[in-house]
Amino acid sequence: MTGATADGMTAAAALKASTLVEALPYIRRFAGKTVVVKYGGNALAGTSNHDALTLFAEDIVMMRLVGMRPVVVHGGGPQISEMMHRLGKESEFVDGLRVTDAETVDIVRMVLKGQVNPQLVAAINVHGNYAVGISGVDAGLIRAEARAAGLGYVGDVTAIDPAVIHGLIDDEFIPVIATIGSDASGQAYNINADTVAGVIAEALGAEKLVYLTDIEGLRRDVADPATLIRQTTADALDQLVADGTIGGGMIPKIESCTRAVRGGVRRAHILDGRIAHVLLLELFTDDGIGTMITAEEG
Amino acid sequence: MTGATADGMTAAAALKASTLVEALPYIRRFAGKTVVVKYGGNALAGTSNHDALTLFAEDIVMMRLVGMRPVVVHGGGPQISEMMHRLGKESEFVDGLRVTDAETVDIVRMVLKGQVNPQLVAAINVHGNYAVGISGVDAGLIRAEARAAGLGYVGDVTAIDPAVIHGLIDDEFIPVIATIGSDASGQAYNINADTVAGVIAEALGAEKLVYLTDIEGLRRDVADPATLIRQTTADALDQLVADGTIGGGMIPKIESCTRAVRGGVRRAHILDGRIAHVLLLELFTDDGIGTMITAEEG
Amino acid sequence: MTGATADGMTAAAALKASTLVEALPYIRRFAGKTVVVKYGGNALAGTSNHDALTLFAEDIVMMRLVGMRPVVVHGGGPQISEMMHRLGKESEFVDGLRVTDAETVDIVRMVLKGQVNPQLVAAINVHGNYAVGISGVDAGLIRAEARAAGLGYVGDVTAIDPAVIHGLIDDEFIPVIATIGSDASGQAYNINADTVAGVIAEALGAEKLVYLTDIEGLRRDVADPATLIRQTTADALDQLVADGTIGGGMIPKIESCTRAVRGGVRRAHILDGRIAHVLLLELFTDDGIGTMITAEEG
Amino acid sequence: MTGATADGMTAAAALKASTLVEALPYIRRFAGKTVVVKYGGNALAGTSNHDALTLFAEDIVMMRLVGMRPVVVHGGGPQISEMMHRLGKESEFVDGLRVTDAETVDIVRMVLKGQVNPQLVAAINVHGNYAVGISGVDAGLIRAEARAAGLGYVGDVTAIDPAVIHGLIDDEFIPVIATIGSDASGQAYNINADTVAGVIAEALGAEKLVYLTDIEGLRRDVADPATLIRQTTADALDQLVADGTIGGGMIPKIESCTRAVRGGVRRAHILDGRIAHVLLLELFTDDGIGTMITAEEG
Amino acid sequence: MTGATADGMTAAAALKASTLVEALPYIRRFAGKTVVVKYGGNALAGTSNHDALTLFAEDIVMMRLVGMRPVVVHGGGPQISEMMHRLGKESEFVDGLRVTDAETVDIVRMVLKGQVNPQLVAAINVHGNYAVGISGVDAGLIRAEARAAGLGYVGDVTAIDPAVIHGLIDDEFIPVIATIGSDASGQAYNINADTVAGVIAEALGAEKLVYLTDIEGLRRDVADPATLIRQTTADALDQLVADGTIGGGMIPKIESCTRAVRGGVRRAHILDGRIAHVLLLELFTDDGIGTMITAEEG
Amino acid sequence: MTGATADGMTAAAALKASTLVEALPYIRRFAGKTVVVKYGGNALAGTSNHDALTLFAEDIVMMRLVGMRPVVVHGGGPQISEMMHRLGKESEFVDGLRVTDAETVDIVRMVLKGQVNPQLVAAINVHGNYAVGISGVDAGLIRAEARAAGLGYVGDVTAIDPAVIHGLIDDEFIPVIATIGSDASGQAYNINADTVAGVIAEALGAEKLVYLTDIEGLRRDVADPATLIRQTTADALDQLVADGTIGGGMIPKIESCTRAVRGGVRRAHILDGRIAHVLLLELFTDDGIGTMITAEEG
Repeated sequence: MTGATADGMTAAAALKASTLVEALPYIRRFAGKTVVVKYGGNALAGTSNHDALTLFAEDIVMMRLVGMRPVVVHGGGPQISEMMHRLGKESEFVDGLRVTDAETVDIVRMVLKGQVNPQLVAAINVHGNYAVGISGVDAGLIRAEARAAGLGYVGDVTAIDPAVIHGLIDDEFIPVIATIGSDASGQAYNINADTVAGVIAEALGAEKLVYLTDIEGLRRDVADPATLIRQTTADALDQLVADGTIGGGMIPKIESCTRAVRGGVRRAHILDGRIAHVLLLELFTDDGIGTMITAEEG
Repeated sequence: MTGATADGMTAAAALKASTLVEALPYIRRFAGKTVVVKYGGNALAGTSNHDALTLFAEDIVMMRLVGMRPVVVHGGGPQISEMMHRLGKESEFVDGLRVTDAETVDIVRMVLKGQVNPQLVAAINVHGNYAVGISGVDAGLIRAEARAAGLGYVGDVTAIDPAVIHGLIDDEFIPVIATIGSDASGQAYNINADTVAGVIAEALGAEKLVYLTDIEGLRRDVADPATLIRQTTADALDQLVADGTIGGGMIPKIESCTRAVRGGVRRAHILDGRIAHVLLLELFTDDGIGTMITAEEG
Repeated sequence: MTGATADGMTAAAALKASTLVEALPYIRRFAGKTVVVKYGGNALAGTSNHDALTLFAEDIVMMRLVGMRPVVVHGGGPQISEMMHRLGKESEFVDGLRVTDAETVDIVRMVLKGQVNPQLVAAINVHGNYAVGISGVDAGLIRAEARAAGLGYVGDVTAIDPAVIHGLIDDEFIPVIATIGSDASGQAYNINADTVAGVIAEALGAEKLVYLTDIEGLRRDVADPATLIRQTTADALDQLVADGTIGGGMIPKIESCTRAVRGGVRRAHILDGRIAHVLLLELFTDDGIGTMITAEEG
Repeated sequence: MTGATADGMTAAAALKASTLVEALPYIRRFAGKTVVVKYGGNALAGTSNHDALTLFAEDIVMMRLVGMRPVVVHGGGPQISEMMHRLGKESEFVDGLRVTDAETVDIVRMVLKGQVNPQLVAAINVHGNYAVGISGVDAGLIRAEARAAGLGYVGDVTAIDPAVIHGLIDDEFIPVIATIGSDASGQAYNINADTVAGVIAEALGAEKLVYLTDIEGLRRDVADPATLIRQTTADALDQLVADGTIGGGMIPKIESCTRAVRGGVRRAHILDGRIAHVLLLELFTDDGIGTMITAEEG
Repeated sequence: MTGATADGMTAAAALKASTLVEALPYIRRFAGKTVVVKYGGNALAGTSNHDALTLFAEDIVMMRLVGMRPVVVHGGGPQISEMMHRLGKESEFVDGLRVTDAETVDIVRMVLKGQVNPQLVAAINVHGNYAVGISGVDAGLIRAEARAAGLGYVGDVTAIDPAVIHGLIDDEFIPVIATIGSDASGQAYNINADTVAGVIAEALGAEKLVYLTDIEGLRRDVADPATLIRQTTADALDQLVADGTIGGGMIPKIESCTRAVRGGVRRAHILDGRIAHVLLLELFTDDGIGTMITAEEG
Repeated sequence: MTGATADGMTAAAALKASTLVEALPYIRRFAGKTVVVKYGGNALAGTSNHDALTLFAEDIVMMRLVGMRPVVVHGGGPQISEMMHRLGKESEFVDGLRVTDAETVDIVRMVLKGQVNPQLVAAINVHGNYAVGISGVDAGLIRAEARAAGLGYVGDVTAIDPAVIHGLIDDEFIPVIATIGSDASGQAYNINADTVAGVIAEALGAEKLVYLTDIEGLRRDVADPATLIRQTTADALDQLVADGTIGGGMIPKIESCTRAVRGGVRRAHILDGRIAHVLLLELFTDDGIGTMITAEEG
């Protein structure tokens, strides 16, 4: 009885098929679209994060394979601090910003471009010759100037020249960007990676800007998981910042999100990077994950 | 406790993620590859097949969305017989081939190009403006000549001009091909759809040639499901045909498979079209399905 | 005497040369230009029309060979009626429109795409692998909706996606279009071919829209050949329709002509399809033929 | 009676239509093909030749309009002689070749590039911005060396760099080439135009090489029009030259024809330039004109 | 002592290196930029000018080699006068303009296109297959009309079709343009070369328009070298013309310069063509040479 | 006296002009050609080398501006040693090779990619957005395997995938390559920079491979400047290595040179990087500098 054959398909196969079919409209929607993913230095630090990096790399490659154009932006605060410590140099912080003298910015550059960046590139390239690691110094990608006299080489972005990213993307590579910038004289600056992710997403006209963090998403009450914000708008976030609901280290992310969606990026996301394959789940399934920010309601 | 969040990911989400990740290497391998799928007229006939067509269309669109180049080839025997009947014309068969007089070939063309083909096109185009229905008469795709004097306009393929398929594929359309051919004078011929699928796969240098059938796969003993052949070679199949193990309606499929894999098509498959999303399962999961034929072992 | 040689050129040769030279400025003017030609189903019906089809095909191929981009649009009323009759189904007409139930629209589609369309394609392809037969269902070319509840699947055009035509034209094929449309669910609709020709010409930004009919051209007095209108404008035609001078079956053609020329098509023509090679004569000679409609005078 | 309308098509219109249709297969065959036409200086000299030039220009433009790629090569013997005479310089001839001292080659260049060439260009450009007049000096098109010490700057072709012709043709211009060459030092040489036409046709891989002359074609007996050779081969011509049947001024043409067809040019033609529109008649009608030379019989 | 090696670099080598480095920013600035250079007929006339032509050709080729797109425009007054004299025809001048009857314009065309133009082309092509000599008649580059009834075929430019220049430049050739124009009938006109250089520079959107003259530059007082104007604006020049400071033969140059810089050409220059390699010095060194005209100050 | 003006051109201007003209044929010869330059880590170490880097950067940009395609390869031995020292890690050497444990290779990667590479990139990018710093890990550029068990992560090149270099060059960027490689698992290896420069030059089919060193060139007797080898062949160098004339640190350079020229690189050079603008002098002047190696004599 041949009818039995079809019935014989296992439930597992049926579930696989339904997952692939569920992914279909999302794959269609995102084909050819650019997604800028900010990967935190925290996620790379420590001994237990090898698996997290492996999972992250699989997600990025999967995005590329189904026709998306992922761009990875990363910082590396913990790794910088550790190297500072090993080199016997104390980090000084003013208003939460690392005071960055000439020697410090050299260490920052060395760690980001020479340690964190190649780790990300290598993890991705296990799957093929995809990733190319650059920094904002390459091809003048990020032009910067000093933020304030007392902070040394802490920089603000003054201009983005995305030509090198376009070139790499058009050649079907995956750019992995260390957030060092430079001024016209070639002096390097340390730049907040959350901020860089946002301005690059805007400069590329990205479809999405995604922050992988170690929290579940934005909460109205940090202490109460039940207050997770599933979806919100730039204006609503402005309000939450203004009334102090959101503060601390989330500010650069939030400001980048609101600026990016107002500047043409369709959606920004705060995702929990500790969930395995959270990028795939967010992109290709119907399940709502983390916090999504749009320019306007609707 | 934010740690709980990650743990809180449901088993369903984990399964979804693992399915997507399982699909990754296959998606990579098949990107840009052409797959010719023969869809049987049987699958379309009858009242209960609306769902089968819907599932088939989803699979074809999914293939296209992940960067493959599907080409659909179809016949329509049952529909032809029904229209012959409605028009009061009796089908005469010689050696299993429909004797095709001038009026019959007009009916064949009318049913294939005007009834079966648009149904397939419409089912696919529910998902977007993908499918374009053509026949072998269009742009001289299939040149044919009479097979035997007594059979009338039953044709053998004499030449394939795949330019129109290349054009449609390059424009990212999905060609759906009704298996009518014509000679230099424009006379139409009825051509076996299994055969056409094979020669088109060969002409396109396709990665795969897939026959969707209503059996589980090839069996050494038709009556015994346990004799399903999972994988075999062209030479082994020649032997099975020679010794009579395989016969009847499978012959055109088998001959097309062996010719195609010897002509450069990497793999041919006999799949059970009654399994939901059998194309996705065969292409994008590790599960072995149906019978796979290669040119040589290994 | 060598002088005698030149004199010896026959009058026939001189006439040939002068015809070729007369064609020169027209060939130059129309190079690369798109011309949409509506070919009536009447012209194909009946036994004596084989020659007419042959001549028409020669003209279309000639246009293509001198660098024009012909697009053929056709209906098939007589053929539909005949098939309805053979299948024992009565056509019901309301206000001159065929009431089209589900079975009827299937027959319409079958006849247009499966019978009339391949005949046109085959006649053209005797000269080379030029023509590709499609319908409005292919690649979502014609989106349609029901005109009125009582008429069933008689459709009005809601949108044109000319991508498939552009693709075929750019690949130097000649699209031959059967005037079936579909809605988002894939349901087919029967659409007036005169109307389709007009909206496609407009969507393509065609140079010309040509109706091949079985009359000499528009007449002010249908009964009086001397009242043939050689040239007129959209506004003047509006007036003739408003005062009842033009009526009946000419209305869809006239409305399509006026809409098309107002929408950017440079010229619309009503030609007598019974004149051998009327397309060539209209396009490539100084002789005025039929009725020409422009957006404005001059 | 509408039938009368079609009957009413005048015989003239019918003849026009049949001429256009007769041209169809030739237009198809020659689309995109390069044809090198040698236009003799004789044809331009004298007062009565304005019309001949006008007719010639129309033919060249017609070829271009139907998609061919005409290349015109010309000399200008009579015009050179006249200018020599006006400047009080005597032409000295050795074995039929003009002894060309430094002053003479300057006059040759001046007349060919500055007088004959612009006349041809202007006649063609009455029809549009088609023709661009160059000489073999431009972009190193024709490299030459002295033929013999005593002849001065009479040159033989040593190399052809067809890049400038390819550039102009690809930009859809019509190159008009004056047959001056130069050596590495920039010294100009006077080169036989018949020879240049042949080597350029060969370098371009032309479809045809056409000599427009003031005779009807090759004759076995120069005095007897009945001995006109309609069609012949390179080998047969070698024989006719060897046995003295052909001689005098025809030798460079004949040698160029045989070399060109052996070098890949499909056909060479000796045509009677005095026949109006002889190029169109040769190319686009079934009438055999002048003498056709092929590499081999068949 | 290897240290001695570096020291041992000769002063000459150091100077060479510094010159190359000085050139660097200019090469960068001018890469891909079009520069129209007017080369005077005076510079070619006479026996001692062979070297000047050689140096000029080297400069033009050097510009091309570093990625610029030079376009040469030339006249040939002295050569025309000499040929007129040799042919026994007297030049008549009205208001400094040569009255140009039909015979005269033929001589002008013959001398410019057939004598001066090929000399320039040959000098450049000693270095490679770069230059292609054309006139305004080719491809309808310069359309002209009669300036005044009494002047005969002295023409004013009515339109520029730069397609042939774009084509040659895109193919990396160097156009050398003789300043003959034509009207719609093909009649040739003699056109002021200074004027043509300006309108072509404007039509091409050139970076620079350069006049090579036999004076050092513009002077406020012609008799006083100390009054050389190094840099000025279009408005300032208007004033100098209005008050009579500038007059005579400089007027067409000056008017062309002011019109060109107002029409989008970035800079116009009056240079002393008698200085060896003056083009290279002006383009690639910091030294100020001749007179530079810009649209506005700054 | 205007004649005085030309005479007035200073000798300096004349020398500048002659230098530019001397450069002309070299610029022509090298246009579009790829040149791989190995820049030694020694050149960057120490305090006095800022100027050397500045001069080097100018040369590289100059090469790019005149249409060449420079590719920079660098190591960084001194910088690695210094960082090892700062981090309190002792370098152990076996046969002159640094034993490279897991921690050491991380430091090597960090210093090369994060310190030396960005310094080179920044120096070049002072002139524009030209340089992009990558390593052999990016896009799988350099695949490596362990050289010997006892050496740890000292790698030999097993494969080069130059796609990322081609992509950057085609986008007109200047790749600056740190010589880290990786195996399939993503493990980094420290690879000799001299060797990498050679295999990359070969993979790119470079015109030249240039080693900038701190010696004058190869000498037959290291102690005797008079034995400098100006020009030699691969075979001759093999002999010099075999008989011990060349040894020590020059071996990797020499072996890379001989392998590269035998593999299709036209010329390899050993230059004295201490000479200001030595690259410009070697490339664009007639002066012979350092040692040139070709595959064969002549």
